[in-house]
Amino acid sequence: MFITLEGLDGSGKTTQFTLLVEWLRGHGRDVLALREPGGTEIGERVREVLHDHKHADMDARAELLLYCASRAQLVAARILPHLASGGVVICDRFADSTLAYQGYGRGLEIGFLRQLLDFATRGRWPDLTLFFDIDAATSLQRRAGGGEWNRMDAESEAFYRRVEAGYRALMAGDPARWARIDAAQSREAVQAAIRARINQALVASGR
Amino acid sequence: MFITLEGLDGSGKTTQFTLLVEWLRGHGRDVLALREPGGTEIGERVREVLHDHKHADMDARAELLLYCASRAQLVAARILPHLASGGVVICDRFADSTLAYQGYGRGLEIGFLRQLLDFATRGRWPDLTLFFDIDAATSLQRRAGGGEWNRMDAESEAFYRRVEAGYRALMAGDPARWARIDAAQSREAVQAAIRARINQALVASGR
Repeated sequence: MFITLEGLDGSGKTTQFTLLVEWLRGHGRDVLALREPGGTEIGERVREVLHDHKHADMDARAELLLYCASRAQLVAARILPHLASGGVVICDRFADSTLAYQGYGRGLEIGFLRQLLDFATRGRWPDLTLFFDIDAATSLQRRAGGGEWNRMDAESEAFYRRVEAGYRALMAGDPARWARIDAAQSREAVQAAIRARINQALVASGR
Repeated sequence: MFITLEGLDGSGKTTQFTLLVEWLRGHGRDVLALREPGGTEIGERVREVLHDHKHADMDARAELLLYCASRAQLVAARILPHLASGGVVICDRFADSTLAYQGYGRGLEIGFLRQLLDFATRGRWPDLTLFFDIDAATSLQRRAGGGEWNRMDAESEAFYRRVEAGYRALMAGDPARWARIDAAQSREAVQAAIRARINQALVASGR
């Protein structure tokens, strides 16, 4: 089973990711936990280029292609082999981030992006995608409160509003794959909601 | 005017590139001389990843996307502005290398590659492409004789034969853009052939 976590920055997604991985491992699941961009040596080097403050002049198309390169390596070298061995893969951001950020956020054409993502992922989309739902204003507020700052954070609120709307459009377009998690709840309530949703998916798939 | 140089490694392309740039500059042309992958800070970092011996397990799709990312940055940041200012851009390898090496050489689908390259280059294909014609056997023989070794050189002769056939197919498909240069001639004869072809193109374009 291939599970991805999506949402705006500041949604608590990464904290919940760590708790989720621990819980699944505690139940004997063979979990490969990944973050994007990165997860392979090649991908980590691409990540450094993407997050480098010196690269403020990065072209939107170059940025997109770097994300996709990192993802192609991750799918080929780690995700497909782990799924083939019967394990669970959990990825903090995946192809939907590209659709939301580069497509809806930056205005690159969605149809072409889907084709490009099919190419990079070899058509292996997630079985379940958890959407950590907070609005753009809350996202900006939480991120202003601290944590790691990188080049992506210099974006405007209007950009994050487009990304938020993009996620809602993606969810509406494929409701069987997406599960909405109310990320405004307490940490414990969010984790409980995630576990319930994943148990349901594991039961449905007979695993 | 946008001129690119293409051909198998060992064709003498890079030496001729240097001579050509000097000649055009000597005639008062404002020449931007570029190499691929690279030519921008982002591109040079991508080049390091592509040529690193540690990355022998690089996925063919990841490789392609890294080349395209470097190219997108180069087109946006350097090629388009220089052409807009009326200058000449000369590039040692460009989008046709992707079609020849990743498409014909590695078997990635040509139709999709063209779409991807249109995206990365914003549709700005060269005005003139010089093909340095040597066969795959001569290419391997010359490269075995010395020079810089990188990850790409570990490829088989069969691969280089497919790349060579690919270049011939590309030339046949767009004869107005391509000019074949017999790279088996002496260095001086090759340079004279290039200059004659570029003079002809400059006269034809009224520049």
